[in-house]
Amino acid sequence: MPDDSMKELADRAVTSIEGIKRTGIRVLEVRERYAKMLMPLKGNVNHIGMMYAGSMFTIGEIPGGILYITSFDYKKYYPIVKEVTIRFVRPALTDVTLEAEISKERVDRIQSDAEENGKADFVLEMEIKDARGEVVAIVNGIWQIRKITEGIEMKLP
Amino acid sequence: MPDDSMKELADRAVTSIEGIKRTGIRVLEVRERYAKMLMPLKGNVNHIGMMYAGSMFTIGEIPGGILYITSFDYKKYYPIVKEVTIRFVRPALTDVTLEAEISKERVDRIQSDAEENGKADFVLEMEIKDARGEVVAIVNGIWQIRKITEGIEMKLP
Repeated sequence: MPDDSMKELADRAVTSIEGIKRTGIRVLEVRERYAKMLMPLKGNVNHIGMMYAGSMFTIGEIPGGILYITSFDYKKYYPIVKEVTIRFVRPALTDVTLEAEISKERVDRIQSDAEENGKADFVLEMEIKDARGEVVAIVNGIWQIRKITEGIEMKLP
Repeated sequence: MPDDSMKELADRAVTSIEGIKRTGIRVLEVRERYAKMLMPLKGNVNHIGMMYAGSMFTIGEIPGGILYITSFDYKKYYPIVKEVTIRFVRPALTDVTLEAEISKERVDRIQSDAEENGKADFVLEMEIKDARGEVVAIVNGIWQIRKITEGIEMKLP
């Protein structure tokens, strides 16, 4: 898929779901098997001026879906999120960013696993960083791609 | 604290932080060391009609703060969230609720630990249920209360 189309799909993923859109999260950069996201502090502050934990979760959970769009064959598989752990390391007092990447080898392995078993898990460990590059939270999640039953058309975000 | 004042504080906690308020989450019931919350499906749906993972996280993370209000001495301690794991068990296709409770013995132990060490962790394991009472997600989190430095006034939500 050309990078432009990927960016369009990724933008749509963060703007078509109300609960995501209202956070103001943005896709900064996207290419094959890579995405960089930004969560603005504005609109996501808690009562003591830090970023609200739930908005940190949103930037931590979205990459599963974005990497799916940029890495897997979305005509054959759809993604689900199974489990997410987020560890808050220090207060986030600025906009925060997250970069997610997955290797070609892993994508191939996951897809052939899904081809064989109908589904395959993939684990992502990612860091959420503040404007100074300090890690504010660590995200560990398990997503899964599942084979789309033939004849069924899946709805992309 | 009388139940009425607790309800007022708990309501304020879910309406004064923009990222929480916009989900439409409500405090259904609150009393000493107990809270029941509801997250409406409306406004929190993803592209395939299930509740968005981030809104599930919000109802899973808030109880730490609400139980803090209803259980601990908020003039002496303030709470932080250290880590949250949320496991998605099945799609949530209705409003969801969560009940959180902590025993008097645990509260006493945590407060005396905090009194001695300046801080103390508390772990909560909670279930998020759909309208039929089926568990849709399991939340495991670690919160911490910290002693407020004398002379500093903490801001409640």
